[in-house]
Amino acid sequence: MTTDTLDGTALSIDDQTADLLFRQARTTAAFTSTEVTDEQIAAVYDLVKWGPTAMNIVPLRLLLVRSSQARARLAAHMNEGNRDRVLAAPLSIVLAADPGFHRHLPTLAPHRAELVDVLEPAVEQREQMARTNALIQAGYFIVGLRAAGLSAGPMNGMDAAGIDAEFFAENGWKSFLVVNVGYPEGAGTTFPRAQRLSADQATVTV
Amino acid sequence: MTTDTLDGTALSIDDQTADLLFRQARTTAAFTSTEVTDEQIAAVYDLVKWGPTAMNIVPLRLLLVRSSQARARLAAHMNEGNRDRVLAAPLSIVLAADPGFHRHLPTLAPHRAELVDVLEPAVEQREQMARTNALIQAGYFIVGLRAAGLSAGPMNGMDAAGIDAEFFAENGWKSFLVVNVGYPEGAGTTFPRAQRLSADQATVTV
Repeated sequence: MTTDTLDGTALSIDDQTADLLFRQARTTAAFTSTEVTDEQIAAVYDLVKWGPTAMNIVPLRLLLVRSSQARARLAAHMNEGNRDRVLAAPLSIVLAADPGFHRHLPTLAPHRAELVDVLEPAVEQREQMARTNALIQAGYFIVGLRAAGLSAGPMNGMDAAGIDAEFFAENGWKSFLVVNVGYPEGAGTTFPRAQRLSADQATVTV
Repeated sequence: MTTDTLDGTALSIDDQTADLLFRQARTTAAFTSTEVTDEQIAAVYDLVKWGPTAMNIVPLRLLLVRSSQARARLAAHMNEGNRDRVLAAPLSIVLAADPGFHRHLPTLAPHRAELVDVLEPAVEQREQMARTNALIQAGYFIVGLRAAGLSAGPMNGMDAAGIDAEFFAENGWKSFLVVNVGYPEGAGTTFPRAQRLSADQATVTV
């Protein structure tokens, strides 16, 4: 890590890191067959778990879909254009939010442990809190995959309720994104890089 | 950027960067008076705008709350415990989702430009798509602030509808998070670091 001055503005990460995490990283559809291990994903989790969430509820949960049987079960609930991508990726990860996060508050937020009982009957509030914060964590997680040298192909074209019934009937997790993970075959995508809005278009100062 | 082998597992970013972005970064409540410029935030935006969103809709929008008058308007809609934090921070940023993202699709997703007309009447669907993807981008943005050497204090204890009426009556943006930004005074927080769930607790493999 070095200080990089670009266009007169300092970033505190070097160009190579900025490229790895954001500027050159691309959503990947074509992966090599190189395996991605549970240990690699645990290392990503152990990095991004430190990202902030409201009251430190950290509700993001990961289902690593690895076996061919599990892969077929997941593919059945993906939109047609995403099925083959799940079947072909070295690893697919279902990102889910855990509405049961409140049971961990005595560990995660000991000064707020009284909220376990307050939140227990507030199912809808817990589901909303879990989804909101797990989505923010999904941003951390995608950056974390890239920080581990992995490429990500996030997809939300899926039947989330079907996935929940298939995999989460017991633990109550709520899926919201499926991310294929591995190493890109060639460029990993045939799409040219799409444009983004400029800072001027996305920002107002008052 | 170097290759760091930790516990036998390789990250592709060095220890100092992993600490800056995640492991040592803390949610900050107390800031020095050092100014944060619009140019610094534009540099953060220009880094994280490349993070993936569904159909490249990139719906995150930023309201930089800088003047004392604007700061007072925002503080009035924060929960009591967060008001002084907004008044004291060098810069507060309202993170919002733009349900009008579809108007930019001819630029952002030219092969999907026909969706402008399909999505125009689908207000609820656009609001949901904007919120979901802007939350993921909020994760990128918080990492991006840290990548620019800034500290973040995210807060969602606020009256989002009140903020929207106050600032977004014309452009229709929907606020979901307020992030104080600056440089930490001392440690920036008096809270000890809270625990996180382990990878084993948050992950299932099938």
